[in-house]
Amino acid sequence: MEIIDTFAEARSLNRGTVGFAPTLGFVHEGHLSLIERARRETDHVLVSLFVNPLQFGEGEDFAAYPRQLDRDARLIESAGADVLFAPAAEEMYPVEPATTVDVAPLAAHLDGVARPTHFAGVATVVAKYFAGLRPDQAYFGRKDAQQLAIITRMAADLSMPVDVIGCPTIREHDGLALSSRNVYLQERERDQALSLSQGLMAAADRVDAGERSGPALELIVRETVPTFEFEYVAVMNRATVTPLAVLDRPAFLAVAGRVGKARLVDNIHFDFQNGEVSVDRGVRLTGPSLLYEQ
Amino acid sequence: MEIIDTFAEARSLNRGTVGFAPTLGFVHEGHLSLIERARRETDHVLVSLFVNPLQFGEGEDFAAYPRQLDRDARLIESAGADVLFAPAAEEMYPVEPATTVDVAPLAAHLDGVARPTHFAGVATVVAKYFAGLRPDQAYFGRKDAQQLAIITRMAADLSMPVDVIGCPTIREHDGLALSSRNVYLQERERDQALSLSQGLMAAADRVDAGERSGPALELIVRETVPTFEFEYVAVMNRATVTPLAVLDRPAFLAVAGRVGKARLVDNIHFDFQNGEVSVDRGVRLTGPSLLYEQ
Repeated sequence: MEIIDTFAEARSLNRGTVGFAPTLGFVHEGHLSLIERARRETDHVLVSLFVNPLQFGEGEDFAAYPRQLDRDARLIESAGADVLFAPAAEEMYPVEPATTVDVAPLAAHLDGVARPTHFAGVATVVAKYFAGLRPDQAYFGRKDAQQLAIITRMAADLSMPVDVIGCPTIREHDGLALSSRNVYLQERERDQALSLSQGLMAAADRVDAGERSGPALELIVRETVPTFEFEYVAVMNRATVTPLAVLDRPAFLAVAGRVGKARLVDNIHFDFQNGEVSVDRGVRLTGPSLLYEQ
Repeated sequence: MEIIDTFAEARSLNRGTVGFAPTLGFVHEGHLSLIERARRETDHVLVSLFVNPLQFGEGEDFAAYPRQLDRDARLIESAGADVLFAPAAEEMYPVEPATTVDVAPLAAHLDGVARPTHFAGVATVVAKYFAGLRPDQAYFGRKDAQQLAIITRMAADLSMPVDVIGCPTIREHDGLALSSRNVYLQERERDQALSLSQGLMAAADRVDAGERSGPALELIVRETVPTFEFEYVAVMNRATVTPLAVLDRPAFLAVAGRVGKARLVDNIHFDFQNGEVSVDRGVRLTGPSLLYEQ
């Protein structure tokens, strides 16, 4: 694997179909699953690693966000990447960026409320990756469902010739969705954190049993873990990220809540084929995540 | 010349270095000069023709904007284009676009004041052309100086591998900067319209004679044509589109004013080489513009 720090050099190494997975580093099995899938589906696998200041809000954990390039490079290579694009801030932002890419209608709900500048920061940097690195297929986790919807729409709206592919959420053995921020959790907080996936799995069971009402599914989540204080519980149209009353098209059920210092999000996706819904609950690891390896 | 109506097909025809000039149609010698320059400097010349609703504000002349595809195609071909990309609205906007590309700091002055949504509309559609058509060099008129600054910054901020090249303003024989909107002018209005270029040329003479003060140059414009009511007269830093007090770096002197139904803009550019300023006043046609041909 080559480690490259300029857009031009990374782009010059592209050959055949290019699969791309962007990361903020401190990678876990979720990221690796994206890279492994890119390896299976494309000729050339390009991964980026950059902790993007634009997508952290005031008072968020930009400075504290874990950075471990050697560890990350080893894992990214082992998952099958050909090139790791790890630019310095000077390559990403040689001058103060003046350009914002915003998909405002899709950022009006959910995390867009608590983090008003977050999604414009994400859309801007991903637009930059897509324009500057020119992948043919780009892989994102379904765990960040709103982000995935926004990036999908951004690429389509800007006629970018890239397929944006959402991949199943990877969960720890107990159901907690993998997140680099899980390492912040103390032991007691971890039990609380499980409320998110427990609520979602209960709702997934009810969809399998025939429930199609958005509000009913939201209630099931809340009733399953009545002591947990959710920031939101919402069934959303996947194309528009607006509330969906009846589960009759691609959608997701998203939850968020604060546990200790960490703000956690999770969701399940509802896919449709021939009018039949199937629930994507994600994939569970059988053992501890490599996040906890020393 | 091939006329193509999808991004994918236009892109598939690219070969070698690709030169690109976007137009709203009803082309004149200004557009043709961009195409001719692309012909000289690149292997494959791609021109777009689309009247972009996003860059017209409420109450502006979107519906009335002149559209003549046959005439335009003939002229664009004669200037040396290989491909004319003339998409239908359905190709450009298959769904209501939710994505905005904004270079807000550079749109805070001049035309950004009178036309608050205009430059985001321009930046968005040009980002789409750059991402979807993948030119290596893109040619824009210096006449739209603020637009040129915004597009240059947008492409750099988004790491788009395209050189944005500003080309001299083409003027009618009497000095009036060419614009498709000139056809709106009645004969008496045309005399008024000349005030813009007359003021600018007087300022250009004073720069040649050693004047370097931004405010002094602005005053010269106003004093040269004291009866004309300018919307603005401003010497601006070309990189930031903010007011420049002393002419010591790349800049332009921009003017705008309303004449009859038409809102006209014009400018001269100040280029620097080895610390020496030179004034780009644009290029005058020797005869009548083809805008006035039947």
